[in-house]
Amino acid sequence: MRTTVPDRPTGQLSDAWRLCVGTGRLELALRRDYQDSLELIQREIGFRYIRGHGLLSDGMGVHRPYEYQGERRVRHSFTYVDQVIDAYLRLGVQPFLELGFMPSGLASGDRTVFWWLGNITPPKDWNEWAALVRALVAHLIDRYGLEQVRQWPIEVWNEPNLKEFWADADQDAYHRLYEVTANTVKEVDASLQVGGPALAPGADPEWLVRFADFAAARSAPVDFVSRHAYTTGPAQHVPFGVHQTLAPASRLLEQFAAPREELKGTALADLPVHITEFNSSYRPDNPIHDTAFHAAYLAPVLAAGGELVDSFSYWTFSDMFEEVGVPTSLFHGGFGLLTHRQIKKPTYHLYAFMARMGDQVLASGADHLVTRHHDGRTTVLAWAPVDPTGREPVLSHTVQLSLPVAEASGDDCAAVYVQRSSVSEEAGNAWAAWNEMGRPASPRARQLDALREAAEPARSHRSLPVHGGRVDCDITLGLHEVTLLEITPVRDETPPWWDEARLYGGNA
Amino acid sequence: MRTTVPDRPTGQLSDAWRLCVGTGRLELALRRDYQDSLELIQREIGFRYIRGHGLLSDGMGVHRPYEYQGERRVRHSFTYVDQVIDAYLRLGVQPFLELGFMPSGLASGDRTVFWWLGNITPPKDWNEWAALVRALVAHLIDRYGLEQVRQWPIEVWNEPNLKEFWADADQDAYHRLYEVTANTVKEVDASLQVGGPALAPGADPEWLVRFADFAAARSAPVDFVSRHAYTTGPAQHVPFGVHQTLAPASRLLEQFAAPREELKGTALADLPVHITEFNSSYRPDNPIHDTAFHAAYLAPVLAAGGELVDSFSYWTFSDMFEEVGVPTSLFHGGFGLLTHRQIKKPTYHLYAFMARMGDQVLASGADHLVTRHHDGRTTVLAWAPVDPTGREPVLSHTVQLSLPVAEASGDDCAAVYVQRSSVSEEAGNAWAAWNEMGRPASPRARQLDALREAAEPARSHRSLPVHGGRVDCDITLGLHEVTLLEITPVRDETPPWWDEARLYGGNA
Amino acid sequence: MRTTVPDRPTGQLSDAWRLCVGTGRLELALRRDYQDSLELIQREIGFRYIRGHGLLSDGMGVHRPYEYQGERRVRHSFTYVDQVIDAYLRLGVQPFLELGFMPSGLASGDRTVFWWLGNITPPKDWNEWAALVRALVAHLIDRYGLEQVRQWPIEVWNEPNLKEFWADADQDAYHRLYEVTANTVKEVDASLQVGGPALAPGADPEWLVRFADFAAARSAPVDFVSRHAYTTGPAQHVPFGVHQTLAPASRLLEQFAAPREELKGTALADLPVHITEFNSSYRPDNPIHDTAFHAAYLAPVLAAGGELVDSFSYWTFSDMFEEVGVPTSLFHGGFGLLTHRQIKKPTYHLYAFMARMGDQVLASGADHLVTRHHDGRTTVLAWAPVDPTGREPVLSHTVQLSLPVAEASGDDCAAVYVQRSSVSEEAGNAWAAWNEMGRPASPRARQLDALREAAEPARSHRSLPVHGGRVDCDITLGLHEVTLLEITPVRDETPPWWDEARLYGGNA
Amino acid sequence: MRTTVPDRPTGQLSDAWRLCVGTGRLELALRRDYQDSLELIQREIGFRYIRGHGLLSDGMGVHRPYEYQGERRVRHSFTYVDQVIDAYLRLGVQPFLELGFMPSGLASGDRTVFWWLGNITPPKDWNEWAALVRALVAHLIDRYGLEQVRQWPIEVWNEPNLKEFWADADQDAYHRLYEVTANTVKEVDASLQVGGPALAPGADPEWLVRFADFAAARSAPVDFVSRHAYTTGPAQHVPFGVHQTLAPASRLLEQFAAPREELKGTALADLPVHITEFNSSYRPDNPIHDTAFHAAYLAPVLAAGGELVDSFSYWTFSDMFEEVGVPTSLFHGGFGLLTHRQIKKPTYHLYAFMARMGDQVLASGADHLVTRHHDGRTTVLAWAPVDPTGREPVLSHTVQLSLPVAEASGDDCAAVYVQRSSVSEEAGNAWAAWNEMGRPASPRARQLDALREAAEPARSHRSLPVHGGRVDCDITLGLHEVTLLEITPVRDETPPWWDEARLYGGNA
Repeated sequence: MRTTVPDRPTGQLSDAWRLCVGTGRLELALRRDYQDSLELIQREIGFRYIRGHGLLSDGMGVHRPYEYQGERRVRHSFTYVDQVIDAYLRLGVQPFLELGFMPSGLASGDRTVFWWLGNITPPKDWNEWAALVRALVAHLIDRYGLEQVRQWPIEVWNEPNLKEFWADADQDAYHRLYEVTANTVKEVDASLQVGGPALAPGADPEWLVRFADFAAARSAPVDFVSRHAYTTGPAQHVPFGVHQTLAPASRLLEQFAAPREELKGTALADLPVHITEFNSSYRPDNPIHDTAFHAAYLAPVLAAGGELVDSFSYWTFSDMFEEVGVPTSLFHGGFGLLTHRQIKKPTYHLYAFMARMGDQVLASGADHLVTRHHDGRTTVLAWAPVDPTGREPVLSHTVQLSLPVAEASGDDCAAVYVQRSSVSEEAGNAWAAWNEMGRPASPRARQLDALREAAEPARSHRSLPVHGGRVDCDITLGLHEVTLLEITPVRDETPPWWDEARLYGGNA
Repeated sequence: MRTTVPDRPTGQLSDAWRLCVGTGRLELALRRDYQDSLELIQREIGFRYIRGHGLLSDGMGVHRPYEYQGERRVRHSFTYVDQVIDAYLRLGVQPFLELGFMPSGLASGDRTVFWWLGNITPPKDWNEWAALVRALVAHLIDRYGLEQVRQWPIEVWNEPNLKEFWADADQDAYHRLYEVTANTVKEVDASLQVGGPALAPGADPEWLVRFADFAAARSAPVDFVSRHAYTTGPAQHVPFGVHQTLAPASRLLEQFAAPREELKGTALADLPVHITEFNSSYRPDNPIHDTAFHAAYLAPVLAAGGELVDSFSYWTFSDMFEEVGVPTSLFHGGFGLLTHRQIKKPTYHLYAFMARMGDQVLASGADHLVTRHHDGRTTVLAWAPVDPTGREPVLSHTVQLSLPVAEASGDDCAAVYVQRSSVSEEAGNAWAAWNEMGRPASPRARQLDALREAAEPARSHRSLPVHGGRVDCDITLGLHEVTLLEITPVRDETPPWWDEARLYGGNA
Repeated sequence: MRTTVPDRPTGQLSDAWRLCVGTGRLELALRRDYQDSLELIQREIGFRYIRGHGLLSDGMGVHRPYEYQGERRVRHSFTYVDQVIDAYLRLGVQPFLELGFMPSGLASGDRTVFWWLGNITPPKDWNEWAALVRALVAHLIDRYGLEQVRQWPIEVWNEPNLKEFWADADQDAYHRLYEVTANTVKEVDASLQVGGPALAPGADPEWLVRFADFAAARSAPVDFVSRHAYTTGPAQHVPFGVHQTLAPASRLLEQFAAPREELKGTALADLPVHITEFNSSYRPDNPIHDTAFHAAYLAPVLAAGGELVDSFSYWTFSDMFEEVGVPTSLFHGGFGLLTHRQIKKPTYHLYAFMARMGDQVLASGADHLVTRHHDGRTTVLAWAPVDPTGREPVLSHTVQLSLPVAEASGDDCAAVYVQRSSVSEEAGNAWAAWNEMGRPASPRARQLDALREAAEPARSHRSLPVHGGRVDCDITLGLHEVTLLEITPVRDETPPWWDEARLYGGNA
Repeated sequence: MRTTVPDRPTGQLSDAWRLCVGTGRLELALRRDYQDSLELIQREIGFRYIRGHGLLSDGMGVHRPYEYQGERRVRHSFTYVDQVIDAYLRLGVQPFLELGFMPSGLASGDRTVFWWLGNITPPKDWNEWAALVRALVAHLIDRYGLEQVRQWPIEVWNEPNLKEFWADADQDAYHRLYEVTANTVKEVDASLQVGGPALAPGADPEWLVRFADFAAARSAPVDFVSRHAYTTGPAQHVPFGVHQTLAPASRLLEQFAAPREELKGTALADLPVHITEFNSSYRPDNPIHDTAFHAAYLAPVLAAGGELVDSFSYWTFSDMFEEVGVPTSLFHGGFGLLTHRQIKKPTYHLYAFMARMGDQVLASGADHLVTRHHDGRTTVLAWAPVDPTGREPVLSHTVQLSLPVAEASGDDCAAVYVQRSSVSEEAGNAWAAWNEMGRPASPRARQLDALREAAEPARSHRSLPVHGGRVDCDITLGLHEVTLLEITPVRDETPPWWDEARLYGGNA
C-alpha cells in the first residue's frame, strides 16, 4: 500500500540525534588516528558535542601533588587538557565534560575500572577535590572564554549506580560528590550548566527520585538530567570478544523515555534530558557493532529518538578505545562508527544519511522518514525491519510512497532526479568484505584501500516523472538495508538542438 | 565457452598507454582547475609525460622584442614556462615538449589557428628562431639539469601536413623548420632527443618517406617519429557542438601501425614511434567523449596499442581546453578524462582501471586482458563490444575465464577475494546523471557533489572458491560496460572460536 | 619629546583600509599562483572585497552569440565566472563587481586597452547589453543567493574619463551606459547596490557634478560613488619598465577627500565613497612598488585614509597581472603585495601589520598609530618619514611614547612583553636581497626559498617595566622602516623555586 | 687571525649526525602532536632512523595471553606497531628497533622503570620470549618486505648495565637475553642486523670486553655495537625540574670514542658503533635543553662526532615524552628539539643548520665548519665558545675566514650573496621570549603564535666582493650564538639600463 506523504511539514527534525557523540577516554584524543576519524565524522556528520571518560585520570596529568619546603602542594596542569580541547574546537565539536575519574593522588582507595585503570573511589580530601574542579573550570574560562564554556554541559561522574564505576555504588556518597562539585562549578560562574547522574540502565526506578529529593533538600544546582541506554543481555565470552542477545531497538526508546517518567512530580521534572551514552551492546568487543544489521536496527531509533529526549549520544565514534585493552584485530566488535584507519561501518552511513536529511519533517513511519530541505529537495530515509535474534531475517521489504514535489522557483517541473545511496549485507559493508578477505587482523595498505572502497554505499540515480505535483517512489530493500533517496526537482536546460539519436553521428 | 588463462605470463604489459597524455595549450597549466585535475590524474593513473601546444605562443610571454639604444633586441623570458614546468614536475609528470606555435613578434604572417590565435607561419628570421630555441633549451638545462631535460622528448611543431596548422601545409618549409630546430637543440646538447613530425591522420603515405629522405639527405637528427590518430568523420555542426560518425576502434590501431609500415626501408625505420595525439573524435565539442560508450570503445585500444608503438597519448586529460572557445556548459563534449571541477568521465575510469593492472600479461583477448602482480594478485579488465554506429547496441555480453591462482607464500589457498569495479550506462557515468538532472550548464555546488558521487564506479565484492589452483570467473557485462576484477588469494586468519551463528547472541 | 598616549580610546579604527583590494583581470583568478597568493593574503590580512577588470571580456566567455535556425541568438555562459567567484568565496573574499569591458561580439568598435585587449567601446545594441547585465546578475543570485549578492557592490565600467578606457572619454555616452546598466540591475532586485563612475585622477572637478546632475535628472539609481587615486608623474620608459616622479603621500589623502568635496550640495553628497583603486604609481612596471620606501610612504595613508572614505583599495594584491604583457622578471615593478610565487614585498607587511592592530584607536600621529585590543594588548604601528624624491633620506628617526597598560583581569602588572616586527631597507625586504643576488629574472627553487626567508620581517622581543600603569617605549627607526610593536601585559607564573643562577647546575 | 679555507675539499661530511634521532616511548608515536613534530623535523632536518623504548611494553598491546579450551595461548597483535611504523615510513624515517621492555604477561618480576611502568625483568619463559621476537620480526617482513626490514638495525634492550633498566644490572642475564634474541632474529632472516648492548655511560670499561668475549664464546651474532653518552652531574631536584652541573662538550666526543677503544683486539673491534642516545643532561626536566647555550654547546659535537662513530642519536626529537610524567608546563626542560605544539628550540636550529651544509668539507675548526655544495655554494657553520659552568660567558667572539669561491659555470664572479641565519640569547630563542612573557605554563593560541615567531632565527643578507677568487668573511658572534652562512656566487643579470638613481623618478 502506497503511503501518501503530506504536502506540508508536520514539524522540525530534532537534532537530538547528532547533539552529542561518545568517545574513548579523553587522553586518546591526543592521537592522530582519533583526530583523523573525528575530522572525517565532523565533515560528513557534524556532531555538536563529544563526551568521554577520564578527563581527570592520571593519563591527562591534571592533578600533580608535590612537596615544596616540606609541605604538600598541588599543581593543576592543563598541558593535555588544552591539547584535547584545542583539537575538539578545531574540529568543530565542543566538549560535553564528564568530571571523573579520581586522580590517584587524590583517591581514597585503589579500586579501578578498565584496562587503563580509572580510579573509582571518592576523593580523600573534599577540599582538594573542590580545588581541582575550580581550577579546571576557571582555567577553561580563562583560555576559551566564558561565552564558550557556558555552552559546555558539565556532568558529574559516570554511572554511579554501578559498583564498577563508583565504589560500592554508594548513592549517598555520589550525592555528596555531586553537591560539592556542582556548587564549586556554580561558584566559578553561575551560568555554567551542571548535571548528572549519568545513570546506567538497570537502576532502581527510585534512584532518580532519590537524586531529585537530595537536590531539592540540599538546593544542589541541577541543569540537566542524564542516563544511559543499552539493549544487550549478558556477555558470553570468547577470546577477544563476546556474544550477547539483543532486545528489540524499541527498548532503547523506552529507556530514553524513562527519566521524564520517573521524575514526574519532582523538582527536576522539566529539565533537559540527555542520554549521554547509548548503543545496542555495552561491550567494545561485540561484532554486532560492525554489521549492516546494526545500522538497520538503529535506524528507527535515530528517526524517532528526538521526540523523547534532548540528545542521545552514540557510544562511540571510533574504535580507538581501550577499555578492554588494545584491539587485536582491525574489526573486533568495537563501538566505533569508524574502525582504526577510518574504515566506515554501516552505522556510520546511517548517521551520514541522517546528516543529509532536511530540517522539515513531512512524514515519519515504521520504515521511513521523509524530510524537505529549504531549497525544495525531498529526502527519504528508509530501512528494512530486522529480527534482533537473527532467526527470521527479512530478505526483502518494500516501501511505497507518493511524494509531493516542492515547486522550484515557480517552474513547472516534469521530472525529479533521484539519487539513491544504500548500505546492506551487500553494499557499503566493509565488515562483509573483511570476512571474505579472510579476516586479516592487520590488513596491509592495499587491503585497507580495498576495504575503504568496499565501505562506500552503493549509489544509483534515475529520473522519475512528476504527475500532478507528485512522484511515486517504490523502494525495495534487501536484508538489513538502509537507504537514502535524495530527490531534486529537475529544471530542464536541454537546448532545442539536442538529439540523442545523433550521438553516434547520424544526421538530424 | 570458458577461456583457460595460462599459469605463466606471456610477457610484460607495455606502459605505452600511459607514457604520455595530451593537454590544452600550455598556458592553461597555470590554472588551478587544471592543476587540481592533473594532480588527481597523476595520483590515480600516473602518466609519465604530458604534451600540449602553445609553448612559444604569445600567452607564454617567451619571445619579447624591444628597442634599446635605437636597436631591436629580444629578451627571452621564462616566467610562465618555469611556472608550468615546475608544476608538472611537482605533480610527477615530465613535459613532452612541442616547439610551437610562432610568437607573433617573430612570425612571417598573421595566419592563426584556434580561438586563442596560435600563429602558424614560419619565422621571419631563422636566426632569431634558432636563438629562441637555443635560449629555451639552455634555460631548461640550467634550471632543471641536463639529466632531467635529456629525458624530455622535443617535438618540432604540430601537424605540418594540415594547412590549419602550418601555412600552406608546405612540407619543404617544414623540413627547413625541422632542420634548423633539431640542429639547434643538438648544439645545446647532443644527448637531447628531438623528433617529429606530429603528422595528422589523412596524410599522403609518402609524406613520412619524404621526411625520411630529407633527414637522410641533410643529416638532420631524428630521435623519434610521431603522428596522430583519430577515427571520426566530418563534423556536423550544431550550436556549441558537433556530431560525427565513428569508424571502429580498430582503425586507431591501424593508424598506430602506419608509421612503421611507411618508414620500412628508410633510415628512420627503427626509431621509436610516438602517437602524440589520439582519440575517437578530433573535436573538443563532440559529446561522444563524455559517454560510457567511449570507454568501452577505447578499451581494446588501450589493451593492445602497446604492441604497436612506444606511446599513444590520449588527447586530452582535462576539459580545460579552449581551442573553440571557453566551454559554455559543464558537459560539452570536451576531450577531457575529467570535466572542469574534476568530474570523472567513464574513459577516466578505463585509464584508472588500466593503472591497477599488473605488469605481467597472462592473457589478452578480444574482450579481456588478464595480468598478474608480483604479490600474486590477478587482475582482469573486461569490456563489452560496442557498435560505433549506435544502431545495434550489445545489451549483455559474458566473459568466462578459468584463472590460475598464484600461490601466496606457499600457503594452501582455498578461496580468492574478488573486488569488482564497473562503469557502464548505469554506473560510474556522471554524464548519464547530468542528463537526468536536466543538463545544467553551470551546476551548483550540490549538483557537483551529486555528480562526483554518480561518477564513481559501481563496486562489489565476493569470495570465490579455488579448485585445483584455479577459479572460475563469469563476468556479465551490461551495455558499454568496462569492468575491473581484482582477485586476491585469501589467507584465512579466522580464529577457531568464530561462529557466525552466535552473532546475534545464540550460545555456541 | 615623548608623546603621552591617552588611557581611553578616541574612536574605532575604520576598516576602510582592508574593505577592498584590487586584482588583475578576473580571468587571472583561474590561476593557481593567483589563488595561492590570495589565500596567503586572506590568512594574514583578510580583505572583504576584491575588484578587477574584465568580468565581461572575451577571456571569461560570458557573451556567446550564435546562429540557430538562421537567427542570431546569444547564450550567456558562466563557466569561468562561477569558477572565479567560487574561488573568491572559498578564500573568504567577496567580489566588488566592475561591469566591463565590452564583449567583442557586442562591441560597437574595435578600440582596446591593454596587452590583453579589453574592448572599450559602447555596446552596439543596448538591449543586448541590458540582457547581458540582467542574465549575469540573475545568474549570480540564482547560484549564490540574494542575501549574498546584495552585499556585492556593482560598479559601472572603469575610468570613463580617460579615452584609453572609454571611447573618446565621452561622458554622455557613459551616462547612457550607467543609466541602462543601473536600471537593469535594480530591475533584477532593488536591493542590489550599484554605483560609479570609477573616475581616474586628473578629471575635471566638474565631471562628478555633471554625473550627479545627470543622475538626478534621469532618476538613475546611485548607491555609491567611486574614484581612483595615484601620485606619480609621467612615465619615463626603459625597456620593460618605467621611472616616475612621486608626489608626497598626502596627495593620496587629498584625492580620497575630493569626491565628497566636489559633490557637496548635489544629490550624491551623502553617499558612501569608495576609492576603488589607489597606489603610488599607476604603472605595473615601476620598481618603486617593490621597495621598503613604498611601505613607509603608504603607512600614513593606511593609518588615516579611513577618516576620509569608506574604502580605499590597493591596486593590486598580486604581480599576476598582464596589462603590459607577461612580466619578464620576478621583480619587475608590479603592483602586487606579493610577487609571483608569493614573495612578500614590504608593502605586504604594512598591510599585515595593520591587520594585527586593535580596533580601538588610542592615538594617531604623523609617525605612529596606537591601538588597543579587547584583550588588553596595545599595538603600535610606527613609520619613518620618507622623502619622495629620494634626495634626502631620513636615515634614523625616533618615536617616543608613554603607553598606558590596560589592567589585565585586575592583576597588578609589573612588566609588559613587547614583540617587534620590522621592515626596512635591511629587513623584510626581498627586493633588496634580490638586488644583491644579481637580479635573477627566473630565480631557481633555492633562490626563491632564500627570498622567502629574506622577505620575513625582523623580529625581536623584550620585557619592559611598568611604572604607574605606564610603559615608556622608545622606537628607533632606520631608513624606510615600518615597525609593529605588540605589547602584552605580563602575568607572571614563575614558580618560587626558579633561580636562573642554577641553570648551569650551581646549588641554590 | 684570518683562517684561509682551502680550495679543495678535505673529505665528505659524514651523516652520522642525522643518521638517527631518539623518541619517547613508541606508543607516543600514535599522537598527533608527535607526528606533526616529526613531520616538521623530517622536512627541515631529515633523520634516517628513529629509536625509542617500549616497543614491547603493554601500551603497544603486542603480547596478548589468553585462555582457550582451558589452555594458555598467546596472540601476537600488531595493531599499534603497524600504526607507528606506517607513520614513520610515511614521514620518511625508518625504525631503529629497540627490543624491550618486557610485556607484563611475560615478565618474571614486577620491577618497572618510569612513570609509564616499563617492566625491566627477564622473561619468565624464554621460549615465549623467542616466539614473541620471531612473530614480531616475521610480521614486519611480511608487511614491509625484507628489503625494507633488513635496513632496520635491531638493538637488544636498553642500558642493561643500570639496575633501573635491567633487573640487578645482571650482565650474565643480559648475555642470555642477547643470545636468545639475536639468534631468533637471525633465524627469521640471516641478513637482518642485530646488535647491542646500548650501554649507559659510567659502565665499567670491562663491560664491553666481557660482552665481546661472551659473543665470541657463544657465537652470538653481533652486527653493531651501541652505547649512550651524557655529560651531566647528579640531579639537584626542584619541583617538576632538576639542575645539574655540566662537563665540557668534549666529554661527549670522548664517550663516542670509547667503544672502539675498549673493543680493540676483540672480535667486535671493527663493527659499526652507534651512539644510540646522547645529550647533555639525561633528565627530561633540565631547562638547559631549552636554551641557546645548549645549541652552542653541542655545535662542535655535531661538527666532529661523525669522525668517531657511525651515528649519534640526539635524545630526543620532541618534548612529547613522559618518563617522569606528563609535563606541567610548555617549557619544562624536556629533551625535545621541539616543544609540544612545535615551538623550535635553539638546538633544533643547530640541526636545521647542519641539514643545510654541503657534503664536501673544506675546513673544520674549533669554532667553525665550512662545506661546499655540488652547485658551488659554500656554507659556514660557526659557533661561539661556551662555558659549561655559566660563570664566564663569552659575550663576543669573532671568526675570520678567507673563503674560496667556486667558479659557477665558468663565469667570472665579482661578488657573492651571503645569507646569514642565527640563534643566540637574543634571536631564534623561544625560551627567552617565554621567560619574558612570564613563563606561562599553558600558553594561549596567541602566545603560541608569538613564540613561533620568536623561535625563528634572525636572518640577514648582503653582498660581499670577490677578490682573486676569494671572499673575506668576518663573523661576529654574540653570547651562545650559532650561525649559518650560505654563500652563493652571484651571476649578475642586471640589465644595462638599470640605474638605482632613477628609482625615485630622476632622469637618466
